[in-house]
Amino acid sequence: MTRQEILQQIQTKKSYLCVGLDSDFSRIPKHLMKYDDPVFEFNKQIIDATKDLCVSYKPNLAFYESMGVKGWQSLEKTMKYIPEEHFTIADAKRGDIGNTSRMYAKAFFEEFNFDSVTVAPYMGIDSVQPFLDFEGKWVILLALTSNKGSNDFQFASQDGEMPLYEKVMRTAQTWGTPEQLMFVVGATHPEKFKEIRQIAPDHFLLVPGVGAQGGDLQKLSEYGLNDVCGLLVNSSRGIIFASDGEDFAEQARASALKLQKGMSEILDNILV
Amino acid sequence: MTRQEILQQIQTKKSYLCVGLDSDFSRIPKHLMKYDDPVFEFNKQIIDATKDLCVSYKPNLAFYESMGVKGWQSLEKTMKYIPEEHFTIADAKRGDIGNTSRMYAKAFFEEFNFDSVTVAPYMGIDSVQPFLDFEGKWVILLALTSNKGSNDFQFASQDGEMPLYEKVMRTAQTWGTPEQLMFVVGATHPEKFKEIRQIAPDHFLLVPGVGAQGGDLQKLSEYGLNDVCGLLVNSSRGIIFASDGEDFAEQARASALKLQKGMSEILDNILV
Repeated sequence: MTRQEILQQIQTKKSYLCVGLDSDFSRIPKHLMKYDDPVFEFNKQIIDATKDLCVSYKPNLAFYESMGVKGWQSLEKTMKYIPEEHFTIADAKRGDIGNTSRMYAKAFFEEFNFDSVTVAPYMGIDSVQPFLDFEGKWVILLALTSNKGSNDFQFASQDGEMPLYEKVMRTAQTWGTPEQLMFVVGATHPEKFKEIRQIAPDHFLLVPGVGAQGGDLQKLSEYGLNDVCGLLVNSSRGIIFASDGEDFAEQARASALKLQKGMSEILDNILV
Repeated sequence: MTRQEILQQIQTKKSYLCVGLDSDFSRIPKHLMKYDDPVFEFNKQIIDATKDLCVSYKPNLAFYESMGVKGWQSLEKTMKYIPEEHFTIADAKRGDIGNTSRMYAKAFFEEFNFDSVTVAPYMGIDSVQPFLDFEGKWVILLALTSNKGSNDFQFASQDGEMPLYEKVMRTAQTWGTPEQLMFVVGATHPEKFKEIRQIAPDHFLLVPGVGAQGGDLQKLSEYGLNDVCGLLVNSSRGIIFASDGEDFAEQARASALKLQKGMSEILDNILV
């Protein structure tokens, strides 16, 4: 999917919402257990209930892998069910030596037809390059993550010059363009978005941490948006587990709608 | 598997060899294509040919994931086929926020019954802790990797104090003990092993990069060994793809034997 197609969708739907399909089997409503594949049925109903409100879906690979072969099958079916217009993200946080990263890229881009994959930067250029080599596909590189542990290594000054997350962002901009590379920046660091937009003015940012993790949409958007939007804000648990009853899809829609309404208002101010 | 059990096996077999099952479908000998599951058949014959020479097997998850559901099935069968005495490593390089890392841990430790998993440190403590929470299981944390891209971030001085790989090793020693935590240190940095042994005297090091990547067993062992061995040295392509003909298993054994003989001589000098 091209950058232009993502931007087009954001404008049409007045939304930069990504719905995270962290479809934890143990939290799926009981009444879905009668289905052959409860995880797929859950995803299907979530997608039906939210697809006009979001521009992206982000299956979290861990929740599928933890179910072995069955989970892989649920993921395959889910990927086929997501409408073509949606930007799909394999939230996998992979990254390995070149020949191995190439295999992961093949898995996500060819086997499952994802538009993008999240990649960890620790191993450097040859762990990222094989993903960038796929035309029309995207790398979403971890920069400043949303979790507590982001404090352990990401803020330390690198050779006295800049924090690690900034070095990752500056270095990676020599590897990939804004047409193929995004960065993960957690919503739990809203005070950092102004600075981050200076480091990477044109790259899309994928922002997890709104909802269950406590990030604030208004605050991060204020500084995180660029003049074409440039944000994809993800909510997972806050949407898909808004209710654990038979009304889970309705409640998911209500949660997604609340975020989309906020986004629509914010976008009205920048997209004239 | 306990540290004592790993050490016992090293002593008995006079080997600290780990065989990497990077079973790339496109490189599997043609005559195996007649089998229902060529990847499993390949692994089975490699295991039969090497199991008395190595103490560990390390399936590289990327090569299984790239084949979708079928790959997952090959991995399940392979894991059941590996003898119980071998230390099994899921080379997966995972790491995510807490609830997600917990799911990956469940996938590798419970679903597939691996003894250990490789984990990326970038996201810090709560991305690693859920793996450490599994009793009797191991985390193998990336420290200094074997690839070219290890130069991009791992050597930069952190707050003027020490390089990133050292900070990772020192910080992680406050998270896990030598009974549950190992570090990845690439064989392509042999000059670093002396220093690394000072940073982590008691932790096992998993050392990739011997063979196809060019690392030197003698050199890294000289400084990398501690007084109970403390090394697992991995070779993948150099063993499993030693031949692409019908003699692939014999040739794999020959390559493994060459490494094991070198190890046996080295061990004779330290294990009296």
